[in-house]
Amino acid sequence: MNGADALISTLVANDVTACFANPGTSEMQFVAALDRKPEMRPVLCLFEGVATGAADGYGRIAEKPACTLLHLGPGYGNGLANLHNARRAFTPVVNVVGDHATYHRQYDAPLNSDIPSIVAANSLWVRSADTPDSVAGLAAEAVAASFGPPAGPVSLILPADSAWLETSSEAVIAQKPVRPAPSGQAVDAAARAIRSATKAVVLIGGQACGAEGLKQAARLAAAGVTVYSDTFIARQPRGAGIYAPKRMQYFGEMALQELDGVDLMVFAGTTQPVAFFAYPNRPSVLVPEGAQTLSLAERSEDAVAGLAALADALGAPAEGPVQPLKLPDAAPSGALSPALAGQSVARHLPENAIICDDAVTSGGGIAVPAMTARPHDVLALTGGAIGAGLPLAIGAAVAAPDRKVVSLNGDGAAMYTVQSLWTMARENLDVTCVVFANHTYRILNIEMTRTGAGQAGPQASKLLDLGGPNIDWVSVAKGLGLPAVRCSTAEEFETAFAGAMAQRGPFFIEAAI
Amino acid sequence: MNGADALISTLVANDVTACFANPGTSEMQFVAALDRKPEMRPVLCLFEGVATGAADGYGRIAEKPACTLLHLGPGYGNGLANLHNARRAFTPVVNVVGDHATYHRQYDAPLNSDIPSIVAANSLWVRSADTPDSVAGLAAEAVAASFGPPAGPVSLILPADSAWLETSSEAVIAQKPVRPAPSGQAVDAAARAIRSATKAVVLIGGQACGAEGLKQAARLAAAGVTVYSDTFIARQPRGAGIYAPKRMQYFGEMALQELDGVDLMVFAGTTQPVAFFAYPNRPSVLVPEGAQTLSLAERSEDAVAGLAALADALGAPAEGPVQPLKLPDAAPSGALSPALAGQSVARHLPENAIICDDAVTSGGGIAVPAMTARPHDVLALTGGAIGAGLPLAIGAAVAAPDRKVVSLNGDGAAMYTVQSLWTMARENLDVTCVVFANHTYRILNIEMTRTGAGQAGPQASKLLDLGGPNIDWVSVAKGLGLPAVRCSTAEEFETAFAGAMAQRGPFFIEAAI
Repeated sequence: MNGADALISTLVANDVTACFANPGTSEMQFVAALDRKPEMRPVLCLFEGVATGAADGYGRIAEKPACTLLHLGPGYGNGLANLHNARRAFTPVVNVVGDHATYHRQYDAPLNSDIPSIVAANSLWVRSADTPDSVAGLAAEAVAASFGPPAGPVSLILPADSAWLETSSEAVIAQKPVRPAPSGQAVDAAARAIRSATKAVVLIGGQACGAEGLKQAARLAAAGVTVYSDTFIARQPRGAGIYAPKRMQYFGEMALQELDGVDLMVFAGTTQPVAFFAYPNRPSVLVPEGAQTLSLAERSEDAVAGLAALADALGAPAEGPVQPLKLPDAAPSGALSPALAGQSVARHLPENAIICDDAVTSGGGIAVPAMTARPHDVLALTGGAIGAGLPLAIGAAVAAPDRKVVSLNGDGAAMYTVQSLWTMARENLDVTCVVFANHTYRILNIEMTRTGAGQAGPQASKLLDLGGPNIDWVSVAKGLGLPAVRCSTAEEFETAFAGAMAQRGPFFIEAAI
Repeated sequence: MNGADALISTLVANDVTACFANPGTSEMQFVAALDRKPEMRPVLCLFEGVATGAADGYGRIAEKPACTLLHLGPGYGNGLANLHNARRAFTPVVNVVGDHATYHRQYDAPLNSDIPSIVAANSLWVRSADTPDSVAGLAAEAVAASFGPPAGPVSLILPADSAWLETSSEAVIAQKPVRPAPSGQAVDAAARAIRSATKAVVLIGGQACGAEGLKQAARLAAAGVTVYSDTFIARQPRGAGIYAPKRMQYFGEMALQELDGVDLMVFAGTTQPVAFFAYPNRPSVLVPEGAQTLSLAERSEDAVAGLAALADALGAPAEGPVQPLKLPDAAPSGALSPALAGQSVARHLPENAIICDDAVTSGGGIAVPAMTARPHDVLALTGGAIGAGLPLAIGAAVAAPDRKVVSLNGDGAAMYTVQSLWTMARENLDVTCVVFANHTYRILNIEMTRTGAGQAGPQASKLLDLGGPNIDWVSVAKGLGLPAVRCSTAEEFETAFAGAMAQRGPFFIEAAI
């Protein structure tokens, strides 16, 4: 076996069985080795930002890493933004970054670059396997490191000669790290503080927003504690039968207004809330002035265990409130809007579906009716780098082939990683893509005013507006291999979305709003 | 004026007048300031890789930097690959990377990342303007630094508060650095070595491959010296009336075979040639064993002056050989191939056109007949990061609105930055895009064998093949706003290409090969 075989064998032995790839010459040995290890599923992505976003979506659903296969520094660069999102989602991802042969690096050939420096900002762990015998051990280290805690992307650099040279090393099994439970003192301190507070809030994030975390959080709610979640959660169950915490508002001053009178904030699986952006004369930290803050469980700790222990300490009941099933009675009608589209989504979303949400200003319209829809998971844009909604859906669909995936996207966001549509067609993934086409970066029109920059004039408008020409999304989607329809009325959307939910396979809807 | 005004004023005062942008919230002040400085032309790109590639194309043609406007670390990341290409092209580019307000960075909001680390590998110069008063001075420094020599991308980080706060600073004028001529000793040494060599080669690259450099190189050829150019040149005049040096072969063993018997290599505006990739048991350094090497002019020096002095020292005539005008007589016919497409390109390419070449395995078919076509400039893929051909064309067309731009692309490469097509439509750029659709990464099928990885089996083939489904390029291009046709015969291509050359404005041709 060569180094590439050792790598794939070790990855598979550690249950890394999906590879989102866009290879180049330096990765050919890895590609060839895939034929000798059919347990690893290769998924071709026509741009690396698709591959990394797909690995993020896969990791959020499978709760284990996929690997990516990226072509030197530029290939990683193309995938950097969605790795930023994965880092902020605490998703395990093992990046395999091909590099020149070790002895060739010194000649600074055209594709040479400082890979360790490029990957550092978004990698929990970085190593280069500079000999074939080091590959298996480092691959196991990489898998282990990707689990954190908290989890995140790691980068294993694989020089071409380490891949093509022979090695006798066996696959190495990684020790998956364990999240420690928070200390009893932390739990007691939180319980005492909550009892003596006038208005206490428990803010949950990350792992605490999973199915079990929400159950424990619901117990706190039943005990009279107000529970909020972070604004953007990597993966959160939502809908009937599931507890719905309040959500920290996106705009800081609104968040603080809502928290008015809160004198204690306890953090579980997250940290002090801060504004997404700074604005002149508006707050950065979203903790009410004078309020006490306490950490029940760090992101690296078992926040679910912490919430359970806190609920016990507060004498909370065994179960808390959950959302009812309440679907819109009638099909919506009239000119299409995100809110009307949301009604159709709520009506027809099947149980156990996965929503990937990169819908920016259109997202709220879906979130409200979905709160009482059939139970599903939501994957949000965690790092603010738009272009995640389509790739996340690829990864989610590969990780859970028996679940319907719905990808909701703003048009500006969807254009970032539009190549995703082809992979959905190639792999026949059960994904319904919705692109809300308002032909503008609507969020920026809002933000422009908030930053005090005033009204956009003719030059500024050119950079906020996506029209002139309007993108014909149906033409683009069909060109990339997907069946596609345009809906400009609620009736059309209802029919198209209901149809998409009733069938298997990829489908594309341009929601003209 | 605020810091954003100070920045744009300084850029404009230093003749930086084009901005390829995809802004976000932290860049809103820059966007608003564009309305107050109409001398700066904003060009919206729907993905940052388009913006940075366009800035590269602009810089290669305008011989001065454009600026980009990028949204924090992820926005830069999306543009990284084409900045890698720009670095390898020695193109001046001033990246303006928006960042959180200085006081907000400490809170590690979702879009926060280590920008200096992400930009380092592809920036000649990096600074953060952490006060509004520092913006103008640093902007001038950035412009100066982008000129090198040799030139390249620089990164000016602009925190949001430095943009929105008031400043009284005036626009600062940058000192453009001068390329020093190589020393007389270097010229004399080269002349002596050439006289005593059996078979001397002068290898030219970078600035030495410009119009004046080629004239001087032709004089060397007239004096009996063999002249080669690097394989991939940022900008090279080609066609009738222009000297055509030999070109270093892409595959190393072929290059060395061609150089057999050479006992001296003199480098002007470049360095020792090396293989693009390493392969088992094949050479990395492309200098014949035992041959002497000498540097006439470093990349930082004035290689044109060096070549002129060397030609004088060798007693070369005042003028050397140039290519004749020799167009294919007849329109080609039959099933379309790159070679037949190349005949039509050569027949109809207007004088002074610009070809942006990211056509990978299809490129050779055009290069041969274009050698005797009407004179034009060729911009090549310098850094090996595919996805440059469409963005380069945007930048070239903005820099030279009176020149016809032809963008030649492999289908795999074009998909990387397909968003470019929309910007061509939006700006009504005079660009004809050709995508050679063979529905495979053909180069990788070749490279797979060369790396010793063997024949692709079923899993590996999935990563080399772009079919299943075939992309309908005409549908994609029309969806993004371009008139488009598909040509599968040479006759169809001849008609479509001739028509595109005879009209102004963007046009798209899928060359089905």
